[in-house]
Amino acid sequence: MPERTISTEQIYNGRAVKLRVDTIEKADGKSTIREIVEHADCVAVVVLDEEDNVVMVRQLREAVGKRLLEIPAGGIDPGEEPVESVRRELQEEIGFLPHRIEKIGGFYSTPGYCTEYLYLYLATELEASRLEAEDTENIEVVKVPLEQIPLLIESGEICDAKSIAGLLQFINLKR
Amino acid sequence: MPERTISTEQIYNGRAVKLRVDTIEKADGKSTIREIVEHADCVAVVVLDEEDNVVMVRQLREAVGKRLLEIPAGGIDPGEEPVESVRRELQEEIGFLPHRIEKIGGFYSTPGYCTEYLYLYLATELEASRLEAEDTENIEVVKVPLEQIPLLIESGEICDAKSIAGLLQFINLKR
Repeated sequence: MPERTISTEQIYNGRAVKLRVDTIEKADGKSTIREIVEHADCVAVVVLDEEDNVVMVRQLREAVGKRLLEIPAGGIDPGEEPVESVRRELQEEIGFLPHRIEKIGGFYSTPGYCTEYLYLYLATELEASRLEAEDTENIEVVKVPLEQIPLLIESGEICDAKSIAGLLQFINLKR
Repeated sequence: MPERTISTEQIYNGRAVKLRVDTIEKADGKSTIREIVEHADCVAVVVLDEEDNVVMVRQLREAVGKRLLEIPAGGIDPGEEPVESVRRELQEEIGFLPHRIEKIGGFYSTPGYCTEYLYLYLATELEASRLEAEDTENIEVVKVPLEQIPLLIESGEICDAKSIAGLLQFINLKR
């Protein structure tokens, strides 16, 4: 074992985020701390309609002070399977129920300091279906032709890690 | 303005991570909270040697309890330009000074709750050069042939968002 946890201090236990500070003994015997954000695992979804449009969402991200264009994503509720989260999130965020859902990948969002893992799915065969939810009032649904996606990433219009990783992973799988 | 910040509570002010909780008034007049992790901006670097190997790092990520294979990345120190961070980080993490550095993109890591932005660079024309730094003792340097990268992403061997986004963005730009 290269590192050993000596003690853990719980700093904050919130709605979406927890924070703990671990004191670590490293392999060389020196001690240090690790600040660790605990966040539930999530699903992120490349949603493709029958005209080869990617269905995306534009929403205010208070942490960065901008409205960003992203693929739909959201937390896995307790007791939910990831694929159930996909069905729920898409009905809440974009008003579609997908009849076909395929797992196409997954990744840690920021493993240097956060526990969060995102399951990446492709959702197709969409049927209009709306579920009401909190905090979805200001989500704007935006359809982007698939062939425009690489350009929107290059230009910085799509500029969050999960959307870039998810969309390019899907495009590469198709090749 | 769709949202207005009513108050801010500073919860934690640590070494790499700060945490604040904002109370927000939404467009409909209802109030809610936003938990926001503050993290310095970073650089992430696709490093390519003259034999078309990607120079990557394998290191223990305590937050997820695994040794992950990632592209080199690190924080921008106060007063540093991102390109200076690239030169410093690569000498600390992989023992190379790049003589050519090009910006090829950038992205927010997790804009739903974190302020961090990553500047994405391509580094080439490598010269052996080592800078000592804390917390780099357990970093293993791994050279991966560029043509194997898509397969390592598909198989889940490369499984963090910045590495997948950065590597696929580089590969797509080359096409």
